[in-house]
Amino acid sequence: MFIAFEGGDGAGKTTQIELLRARLVDDGHDVVVTREPGGTELGVAIRQLVLHGAEVAPRAEALLFAADRAHHVATVVRPALVRGAVVLQDRYLDSSVAYQGAGRDLDPAEIKQLSLWATEGLLPDLTVLLDVTPQDGRSRRGTVHDRLESEQDDFHARVREHYLRLAAHDPGRYLVIDAGLPREEIAAIVAERVSRL
Amino acid sequence: MFIAFEGGDGAGKTTQIELLRARLVDDGHDVVVTREPGGTELGVAIRQLVLHGAEVAPRAEALLFAADRAHHVATVVRPALVRGAVVLQDRYLDSSVAYQGAGRDLDPAEIKQLSLWATEGLLPDLTVLLDVTPQDGRSRRGTVHDRLESEQDDFHARVREHYLRLAAHDPGRYLVIDAGLPREEIAAIVAERVSRL
Repeated sequence: MFIAFEGGDGAGKTTQIELLRARLVDDGHDVVVTREPGGTELGVAIRQLVLHGAEVAPRAEALLFAADRAHHVATVVRPALVRGAVVLQDRYLDSSVAYQGAGRDLDPAEIKQLSLWATEGLLPDLTVLLDVTPQDGRSRRGTVHDRLESEQDDFHARVREHYLRLAAHDPGRYLVIDAGLPREEIAAIVAERVSRL
Repeated sequence: MFIAFEGGDGAGKTTQIELLRARLVDDGHDVVVTREPGGTELGVAIRQLVLHGAEVAPRAEALLFAADRAHHVATVVRPALVRGAVVLQDRYLDSSVAYQGAGRDLDPAEIKQLSLWATEGLLPDLTVLLDVTPQDGRSRRGTVHDRLESEQDDFHARVREHYLRLAAHDPGRYLVIDAGLPREEIAAIVAERVSRL
């Protein structure tokens, strides 16, 4: 089972992944927690290039994220799924569509195609979208960490719109939760949905 | 005007680019000599990742080369062409199709589509293919420099076949020359074709 966590910066993805991981491990599951970008050694190097380097041309940025994804899926995610593990992943395809498509003026449909080619069509069984307003996200994440996070609120508002549109388009595979709820309440909603899968 | 030089390792691309550059500069042209992978600072970092790092998943490798190309075309090649320069480039789209498509068991048509997306469809006005047999290429390039160059002769034979197929498919935009000819003779053939463009 492959579960992706999506949402703007400061939505609380890391916290919720850790709470779900602990619960699944308690239930005796083999759980792999991973992330994009940066879930492999190659991915860490790519993440450095994109987030902390000089300006990268928009299509190059999209292709670097797709390269990270291709390597990560081929060497981490698919082997884990094949051996029967539950994979909990911080950001996946929808992040690329929302951030690159919304923010960088590239066609979201083309970005999605790029990721599907990179991953040979791998999609999550469930995507948990932690929905956060740009204002809440900013106040929750505190100091500015990198170039993407320092973009303006209207950028984050466009990202959020894209996320919500993706979820609305395929409700059976999304769980959208208000990130402003207490974290235990969010964790309970997630756990209930996962237990049904 | 955009001229790409293609061919197996050891075909003599660097020498021929330098000879053509000198001739065009003598004629008063603004000439930009560049290369892929590695024609930008980002490209150098990507080249390091692909050629000298640990094993990279095949689709990730293809996407990294496409990212290098996207950035290189957006920041080096297109600006040079816009100001009226002649761009002489060591390897372009056909290298990806021939090396990735032939050697890595990826679909050459998909690799080409990836590059066309990366470059917003930029194709050379002329591609000079320096045709070299795997045996000649090996003896000419001497010591082994990186992972790709150390692949076996049958890999290079498949690369060569792909190159020749690309040229045969679009003869008006290719100049195929036997790389075993004397270098001055090759240079004269190239110069004659370029002067006609």
